[in-house]
Amino acid sequence: MRRYSEKMDRLVGSVIREIFKMMADPQIISLAGGSPAKESFPVETIREIADKLIAENPVQMLQYGVTCGHMPLREAYIEHMLKPKGIQAEVKNVLTCTGSGQGIYLICDVFVDKGDAILVESPTFLSTLNVLNKIGARLIPVSTDENGLIVEDLEAKIKQYNPKMLYTIPTFQNPSGRTIPAARRRRIAELSAEYNMIVLEDDPYGELRFRGEAVPPIKSFDAAGNVILLNSFSKIIAPGIRVGAMCAADDIIQKIELVKQGADTHTPTLTQAICAEYLNRGLLPAHLDEVADIYRVRLDAMLDGMAKHFPAGCKYTKPEGGLFVWTELPGDIDCSELNKKAIEKHKVAFVPGSPFCVDPADGKHCLRLNFSSSNAEQISLAIERLGGLIQSEL
Amino acid sequence: MRRYSEKMDRLVGSVIREIFKMMADPQIISLAGGSPAKESFPVETIREIADKLIAENPVQMLQYGVTCGHMPLREAYIEHMLKPKGIQAEVKNVLTCTGSGQGIYLICDVFVDKGDAILVESPTFLSTLNVLNKIGARLIPVSTDENGLIVEDLEAKIKQYNPKMLYTIPTFQNPSGRTIPAARRRRIAELSAEYNMIVLEDDPYGELRFRGEAVPPIKSFDAAGNVILLNSFSKIIAPGIRVGAMCAADDIIQKIELVKQGADTHTPTLTQAICAEYLNRGLLPAHLDEVADIYRVRLDAMLDGMAKHFPAGCKYTKPEGGLFVWTELPGDIDCSELNKKAIEKHKVAFVPGSPFCVDPADGKHCLRLNFSSSNAEQISLAIERLGGLIQSEL
Repeated sequence: MRRYSEKMDRLVGSVIREIFKMMADPQIISLAGGSPAKESFPVETIREIADKLIAENPVQMLQYGVTCGHMPLREAYIEHMLKPKGIQAEVKNVLTCTGSGQGIYLICDVFVDKGDAILVESPTFLSTLNVLNKIGARLIPVSTDENGLIVEDLEAKIKQYNPKMLYTIPTFQNPSGRTIPAARRRRIAELSAEYNMIVLEDDPYGELRFRGEAVPPIKSFDAAGNVILLNSFSKIIAPGIRVGAMCAADDIIQKIELVKQGADTHTPTLTQAICAEYLNRGLLPAHLDEVADIYRVRLDAMLDGMAKHFPAGCKYTKPEGGLFVWTELPGDIDCSELNKKAIEKHKVAFVPGSPFCVDPADGKHCLRLNFSSSNAEQISLAIERLGGLIQSEL
Repeated sequence: MRRYSEKMDRLVGSVIREIFKMMADPQIISLAGGSPAKESFPVETIREIADKLIAENPVQMLQYGVTCGHMPLREAYIEHMLKPKGIQAEVKNVLTCTGSGQGIYLICDVFVDKGDAILVESPTFLSTLNVLNKIGARLIPVSTDENGLIVEDLEAKIKQYNPKMLYTIPTFQNPSGRTIPAARRRRIAELSAEYNMIVLEDDPYGELRFRGEAVPPIKSFDAAGNVILLNSFSKIIAPGIRVGAMCAADDIIQKIELVKQGADTHTPTLTQAICAEYLNRGLLPAHLDEVADIYRVRLDAMLDGMAKHFPAGCKYTKPEGGLFVWTELPGDIDCSELNKKAIEKHKVAFVPGSPFCVDPADGKHCLRLNFSSSNAEQISLAIERLGGLIQSEL
C-alpha cells in the first residue's frame, strides 16, 4: 500500500484528458480541447530564430540560466506586452515561467494554504480548480453574468470569507468566453486594495481579439500592487514551447522566484529566447492579425450554426475573441451523458460544464465549445449534429 | 502586509545564489557552482538536430504535448539509459520532466506531507532540503562514511522514524563526490521493500565517470517497485534545455503525471526531442568520453593541488567522477567566514558545508569544491590560494 501524500486524495485528473481517451476515432470532430490552430504556428520564423540563437549565442542557450527568467524576454515582455496596455513595470516586476500553467501553480504555492478561502469565477478554468483543490483551498465561487464577474457579489463574498486571493480570467474567459468591462475591472482592483486581497489576473487569451475594442487589464488599475498579471505565449506563438510571463510587485516576484528555484530551476533558455526575439522583431501584431483571421471565421461558423441548429431556449455567449463559447441548455439534460452520446453516435466531442464549477451541479446543463482547433466546415457540421442531438433530448 | 502561505516561512533561498552575488568580480575563480563546462556542450549537433526537428515535424514540436513526456524520449531513455544498467522498463514506467529538479519537486509533492519523516544523506543536495523544508517534512539525516550512506544507520533510522522516503544521490554525490558500493545499494533496495519506504535515487552525475568501474543503480535491485530512479540531461547534454527523466512503478508515474498536469502541463517538446534524437543517434557514449577527458584533468589538478597545498589534517574525498570534492578542515574554522575571506582577499569562491546539512553545525568545518566549471590552471591557482588561507586560519 503506497503512502502517498494526503494532497493526492484531493487531486483528480483532468476531465479533458479522459475525454481525449474516448476520442481515438479520427472521424470525431473535436470541439473539446483548447489547442490553438496548428495552421497558426509561425514555423519558419521559429526555425530560423532557433538556428540563429544557437549559432550566435550557444553558451547562453545551453548553460544554466537564472530562475527569474531570460533577461531579453523579461525586457521584451515589458516593452511589447505591458507598456502598450498601460502597465509600467521594471524587470524586477517580471518573472518568466514554463507556460502560464506553471505561473498559476507557483502563485498558488506562494499564497495558498490548506483551508484558505480563495474566490473563483463560476465557471472557471478547471486546471486551476485542480491545483487549488490539491492544496486544500476552500473554493468560493463568485457569480457571473454576461459581463463576467459580478462585482457586488465579489464584495459580498470578500466580506463574508476574507479571501487571500481572487482568481479571474477577465478576457475571453475559459470556459465562458466572457470579457469583464473596464468599469468592473477598476472596481476589482479597488476591492483588492481595500481588502488586502491578491488578484491573480490570468490572461492567456486577451491578445486573441477578432472584433471590438481592447479592454485594459485589471493590473492597469492596480494602485496597491495586489494584482498579478499572468500571460502566456501558448496561444500567440505556440504552446509546445511552454513559455509564460507574469508581472507583479517585486516582493511577490521574489517569493515566486524562491519557489521556482525548487520547481524547475529555470524555464529552458532557448524557448524563452525564441519568444524574446519574436517580440523584438515586432512580429507579434501582424501575426495576431493572421491568427484573428483564422479564428474569426471559425467562431462565426460556430455562432451561425448555433443560431440555425440549436433549439430555442439554448443560451450561449458571443465572444469577440479567445477560443471558447459557453452554452447553457434548457430542460434537464446532463451534459456529461450528452457528451458520451455525442462522441459515440454523432462523432462530435465537447467538454461538459461541471468540471469548470466548484459545485458540479452548477455546470450540469452547460457545455464548453472550442472553435480554434477545427476548421469552419468541421465546426458547422459538428454544431448541426450537436443541435440535432440536443433537440432529441428535450 | 502580504498574506503569504505558511510554507513560505520555511523556504530559504539558495545559499549558492547569495554566493554568486558576491562574485561580481570576474577575477574570482569559482569553485562554487555546479555548472557543467561550457566547452562540453555539443553545440553544432544540437543546432543541427533542432533545425531538422522543426523542419520535419513542426506541428508536433509546437502543439501541446502529453504530460508524461514526448514518446520518442521516453523510449530512447529506456533503450539507452536504463537497459544498459540492467533496468527493465516500459513506457508506462517513464515520465520526463523539466530538469531533474522538477522531478524532485513533483515526487516530494506526491509523497510528502507536513510532518512526515524523510531520510536524507548527511550532507546532501541543498535544493532538495529546501523543497522538503518548504513542505514541512521532518528531515532525518543518515550517517555516511567514505562509501556513502551507512546501511546500519539507515535501518536504525527507518525503525525509529518509519520514514515515507529516503532521498539519496548514490553516485558521485552532491556535495561529497562519494559513491555507494553495490552491496550497500542492494541492501538499500531490500530495506525499501521490507519497510515500505520509497527510495528517491537521484542520479544526475552517474554518467560522468572518469575512471573505475560503474556501479549498478539501486533501481536495478528494486524487486518491490519502491525505488524511483531520476536522471538528468543537464550534465550529459546541456542544463539550459531543462530535461530530466524518471523510472518508477506505473502507479507512481500516474500520480506524478497528475501533479505535473498542474505544474507545467508538459515539458517543452523541442528540448525533449533534441535529447531523444541525440540518444537515438548513439552519440552519448562518445560524448561522455570527451566530457570525462575534460573533467578528469580538472579533478586531478584539484586533488594534486590539495595534496600539495592543503594543511595536514584536511580530509577530502577522491571521487572517480562527478563534479565535486568535499573537504573537512581541521581545527575550528567556520567555512562560511572562510568563504567570505576567500572571495574578498584571495579571489576564490566555494560553497561552505552547512547548507548541505540538516543540522548546519554538521557542515560548519566543511566545504564543497567544484572542478567542472574552471580549467585546470585556474583550479591549481585557486587551490594554492585556498590552501594558504586555510593554513593561516589554523
